[in-house]
Amino acid sequence: MSEQGGKSERYQRGIKLVEKLYGEVAAKTLNSLQDGAPQLADYIVEFVFGDVFSRPQLDLKSRELATVAALTALGTAPAQLRAHILGALNAGCSKQEITEVIAQMCVYAGFPAALNGMQAANEVFAAGAAKKA
Amino acid sequence: MSEQGGKSERYQRGIKLVEKLYGEVAAKTLNSLQDGAPQLADYIVEFVFGDVFSRPQLDLKSRELATVAALTALGTAPAQLRAHILGALNAGCSKQEITEVIAQMCVYAGFPAALNGMQAANEVFAAGAAKKA
Amino acid sequence: MSEQGGKSERYQRGIKLVEKLYGEVAAKTLNSLQDGAPQLADYIVEFVFGDVFSRPQLDLKSRELATVAALTALGTAPAQLRAHILGALNAGCSKQEITEVIAQMCVYAGFPAALNGMQAANEVFAAGAAKKA
Amino acid sequence: MSEQGGKSERYQRGIKLVEKLYGEVAAKTLNSLQDGAPQLADYIVEFVFGDVFSRPQLDLKSRELATVAALTALGTAPAQLRAHILGALNAGCSKQEITEVIAQMCVYAGFPAALNGMQAANEVFAAGAAKKA
Amino acid sequence: MSEQGGKSERYQRGIKLVEKLYGEVAAKTLNSLQDGAPQLADYIVEFVFGDVFSRPQLDLKSRELATVAALTALGTAPAQLRAHILGALNAGCSKQEITEVIAQMCVYAGFPAALNGMQAANEVFAAGAAKKA
Amino acid sequence: MSEQGGKSERYQRGIKLVEKLYGEVAAKTLNSLQDGAPQLADYIVEFVFGDVFSRPQLDLKSRELATVAALTALGTAPAQLRAHILGALNAGCSKQEITEVIAQMCVYAGFPAALNGMQAANEVFAAGAAKKA
Repeated sequence: MSEQGGKSERYQRGIKLVEKLYGEVAAKTLNSLQDGAPQLADYIVEFVFGDVFSRPQLDLKSRELATVAALTALGTAPAQLRAHILGALNAGCSKQEITEVIAQMCVYAGFPAALNGMQAANEVFAAGAAKKA
Repeated sequence: MSEQGGKSERYQRGIKLVEKLYGEVAAKTLNSLQDGAPQLADYIVEFVFGDVFSRPQLDLKSRELATVAALTALGTAPAQLRAHILGALNAGCSKQEITEVIAQMCVYAGFPAALNGMQAANEVFAAGAAKKA
Repeated sequence: MSEQGGKSERYQRGIKLVEKLYGEVAAKTLNSLQDGAPQLADYIVEFVFGDVFSRPQLDLKSRELATVAALTALGTAPAQLRAHILGALNAGCSKQEITEVIAQMCVYAGFPAALNGMQAANEVFAAGAAKKA
Repeated sequence: MSEQGGKSERYQRGIKLVEKLYGEVAAKTLNSLQDGAPQLADYIVEFVFGDVFSRPQLDLKSRELATVAALTALGTAPAQLRAHILGALNAGCSKQEITEVIAQMCVYAGFPAALNGMQAANEVFAAGAAKKA
Repeated sequence: MSEQGGKSERYQRGIKLVEKLYGEVAAKTLNSLQDGAPQLADYIVEFVFGDVFSRPQLDLKSRELATVAALTALGTAPAQLRAHILGALNAGCSKQEITEVIAQMCVYAGFPAALNGMQAANEVFAAGAAKKA
Repeated sequence: MSEQGGKSERYQRGIKLVEKLYGEVAAKTLNSLQDGAPQLADYIVEFVFGDVFSRPQLDLKSRELATVAALTALGTAPAQLRAHILGALNAGCSKQEITEVIAQMCVYAGFPAALNGMQAANEVFAAGAAKKA
């Protein structure tokens, strides 16, 4: 989708960030797009991470917490919410910062949204604990 | 709605926070509820601010940024989004932190949501500038 | 859109209900559709009111309260919410039943949704009071 | 999160209602919150049930039907919708009242929302029938 | 739900379209409604397909693509999205037209919505390939 | 936001499309972003129109109709819906194709969403008629 040269710089910047924040989770998602919509994989690396998340005007911790808040409130993307809870941990957020933000969403999107957000967090935290054990 | 004694402590804690973050904007909202649903005004002061926002486990800046992210993404409450953009400023966020979070929502809730969020921010920033002038 | 004969029975049943519940408000909405999408006006009279709302298995009061709950929670249709608050009153709901249902939505869709619902109710109640005075 | 004395009264009132309406389903949800966000469990018992649902101005049947309508329309919380369909039965609603409200949501939130709501109802009704058999 | 005579014409027109577009998938959905909400099955055949989709003013390909766009953006009905991706194929859309529309939704409803839409498409395409093999 | 050289090609391609589809409406939106979030203006030109809408795999008519469907269903962005109704006309859609798609959304997102979509269409059509007169 991007012109030669253009692609490489934005792509390189983006893919580094993707690997740092989400590890294997992201590779799986990007691969699943190769058959049907390879442009969507490019957009995610180049635009979402190479452009938006790479802007130095806001730190990655704040970016991931804002995303956790939004996806908890929307309630329509549990898999992506789990990915960004992992990304928030990898960006340096504590578990407590994450659960406080999720719990607070009961005020803005209702208790069912906050409860489903907490279930996502519990799954990510449990998977992390299992890995370390 | 709350038992005697119980009300005063949660309410006192909450109303202080409401006044600090939103000033006159909040008073207007709370008054508008007195006729039809006075319990809703109590819930906002006691529960939202006396309970949720008063927890010391997360700072007010992060709480307001998370709310700005969620309300921008939901896109259904422009007046409350404006109130929380003001609250974010009063909690110590810079204008740039706020606009970065709002712009980032184009990734999670689409460009129309981010554009409407930016319009809300521009209105709040313009009103603040008018006040100072 | 409906076959002759078929249309008249469902339509007659529907239009009576529309007039009973919403009066002039509905006439205005149905007229506004005549230019661009007259089929939508037919669907509303025949399907929504001639079919769905006419089923005797649930009373009109419960139907209108359920609609007020849903539109408050969705938060995307303030004009239609106002129409159904009026419809709830005309179906025999008290103002208090309506405001309790709206306030309760803070639990399921967040406080901004409940606040916007209460503003809609206040506008409908004020218009009604103005008419009587 | 609540002050001593204050907590016990609201909590006692709330937990009785929770047990009456949802039985074991609720215990499981509240327990799952103890690790990550125990405050959310307190809010649900004290605020949602001790404050909001305990108000005598609206009967529990109407409160549960309104919740079933809202969660069907939002379509983002199938587990909580099932819990409230059970709560509606335990509050005295007939199966027919519940299915009429869910079916009516096709008008306000579209047919997919109504279909998913009916699937939730069928699951709850089947589980209840299995229990009795 | 419809008067004699009225039902048969709208129903016949609708059920033919349902069978053409969705095959067995639709029969299963319509059957699942017979116990709890048989009126909903009638509404789907008579109203959705006998009335709305049967209007000659827009071709079935465009109707199905518009539905794929809307359900991808809403993100709350994955089963119905899969049904309409199948319907789009049966109405003559190419796989590429479908994936382009889904990918484009990243702009209007965010990347998580587009990613979940692509997963739905991959499942439908894989099931079709399995059938042919 | 984009590297030199990279920007110009994607930007040139995007801005031509923006001007063709939306005329002055777009210029106003892009200008309003210059103070607070100039990167968002760049993303819209480069990414939304230079990347996504410029892909030749789907014609502009289908892209605009899909967007009209999605924004009508979401119901949270009336100004952007109006812009894309104009864009659909400029891409070659007839008024009837647009109103059929909007009316069809009553099935997937409810009647209030379809009614609000029709109001948006009526406003755009009336403004166009006024211009010609």
